[in-house]
Amino acid sequence: MKTLIVHAHPEPRSLNGSLKDLAVTTLEGAGHEVRVSDLYAMRWKAAADAADYGAHASSPLQVVRDSGHAFAAGDLTPDVRAEQEKLLWADTVILQFPLWWYAMPAILKGWVDRVFTYRFAYGVGEHSDTKYGERYGEGTLAGRRALLSVTIGGPEAHYSDRGINGPVDDLLFPIQHGILHYPGIEVLPPFVVHGADRMSAAEYPAVAKAWEQRLLTLETTEPIAFRRQNFGDYEIPSLRLKADLESPGRTGFGLHVRG
Amino acid sequence: MKTLIVHAHPEPRSLNGSLKDLAVTTLEGAGHEVRVSDLYAMRWKAAADAADYGAHASSPLQVVRDSGHAFAAGDLTPDVRAEQEKLLWADTVILQFPLWWYAMPAILKGWVDRVFTYRFAYGVGEHSDTKYGERYGEGTLAGRRALLSVTIGGPEAHYSDRGINGPVDDLLFPIQHGILHYPGIEVLPPFVVHGADRMSAAEYPAVAKAWEQRLLTLETTEPIAFRRQNFGDYEIPSLRLKADLESPGRTGFGLHVRG
Repeated sequence: MKTLIVHAHPEPRSLNGSLKDLAVTTLEGAGHEVRVSDLYAMRWKAAADAADYGAHASSPLQVVRDSGHAFAAGDLTPDVRAEQEKLLWADTVILQFPLWWYAMPAILKGWVDRVFTYRFAYGVGEHSDTKYGERYGEGTLAGRRALLSVTIGGPEAHYSDRGINGPVDDLLFPIQHGILHYPGIEVLPPFVVHGADRMSAAEYPAVAKAWEQRLLTLETTEPIAFRRQNFGDYEIPSLRLKADLESPGRTGFGLHVRG
Repeated sequence: MKTLIVHAHPEPRSLNGSLKDLAVTTLEGAGHEVRVSDLYAMRWKAAADAADYGAHASSPLQVVRDSGHAFAAGDLTPDVRAEQEKLLWADTVILQFPLWWYAMPAILKGWVDRVFTYRFAYGVGEHSDTKYGERYGEGTLAGRRALLSVTIGGPEAHYSDRGINGPVDDLLFPIQHGILHYPGIEVLPPFVVHGADRMSAAEYPAVAKAWEQRLLTLETTEPIAFRRQNFGDYEIPSLRLKADLESPGRTGFGLHVRG
């Protein structure tokens, strides 16, 4: 495997830092190639703006169109081009981050905002009566697999089916489905560590063992069965799930997983 | 009213910029006080890190604990303290942003990550057999109202009940419930503009009129009926919704709205 790890925590000696380091040693020890984008160490620029598109930045700025022009011309900034090249090099992508306010830290969201440009991650493929672009199961990053490795401060019950924060699978859906599956990536079930803020040193070995186990079985793990867009499950162009495909008891995000 | 508008778009002459400007003139024209945090204009620092906590940054850094210490001592950085003061000044908060990759732009997520610190927005109130801190309906920002004004590139059908991107209410739930309701804010239904990327100048007046209408009725608009945490709907400490409160057909995030 060729694995890209995108890491988003400001403290190298944090739980996130330890899980990232363990991923590197475990995968390399098993003979795989690993590259790491340590966003804090790289001082990653989080905010997308006109400077990202150089001479292609129009006035007024049009983020979608201008980013597509800069991408097509090979004129995106070197930091963004390097990340796009890493994504094309990798067959496996791991995002390592703490869940802050029920979402990715800003620096990681800024990696997505700036790297997943028009014509690279969206606005790809033709539109027709049977196809609405290449997305959700097709696209530039098709053939790749990804998983989220997420630390969460609160206890598991708060993120369960009836938990007050919402089910963790629903909280991660906009990332797993909306960001990763969209440009074609197959997404493996996430590795989630709860109670991260209160974890003692004595508890870490069990977490590390579970993470190693996941890392060493990445190639044989079944991805989440997200429905693909252009293969008959959705009306085009409304992109609504066909009514006869609804499963009893499934609503909202859950509809988009074959069941 | 005293309204804080937090604005997150890099182009002043964008649809988002126009909606922000219209909010200022409409609210001021109706006799209200308005303050604006224009995050791009302010060059807002998006990434939370040790520099945010000054002398309270421990080694290794502990984001939760260190931010709480810096907050309690009044030692957070001036940019963060200014935003906390604006939130305490306001009775109404508007977040104006484009939906990028099904979430807030990184710069706005960074406003949340850095301003909503421990002991200010979370880690507030006592824990007992009947109370699990002050959150979800109680907290530092109780008594305030907020709404999201969001522009979305795609068409409404893609964000409908069976739409492939997921229902817009579910996509916004982690912001409306997880970020805003958590520290006590009542959240009004969002103002959502679809098809933002393809909007023509001829279409803008209807959008502007609808936005003015929402702005002039903020004080009489019913908030989303999110369940409050400490008033009998949830088991404590598991914070799971009591089983007999489930409504038929509601699952996932929808469980946490009374109805």
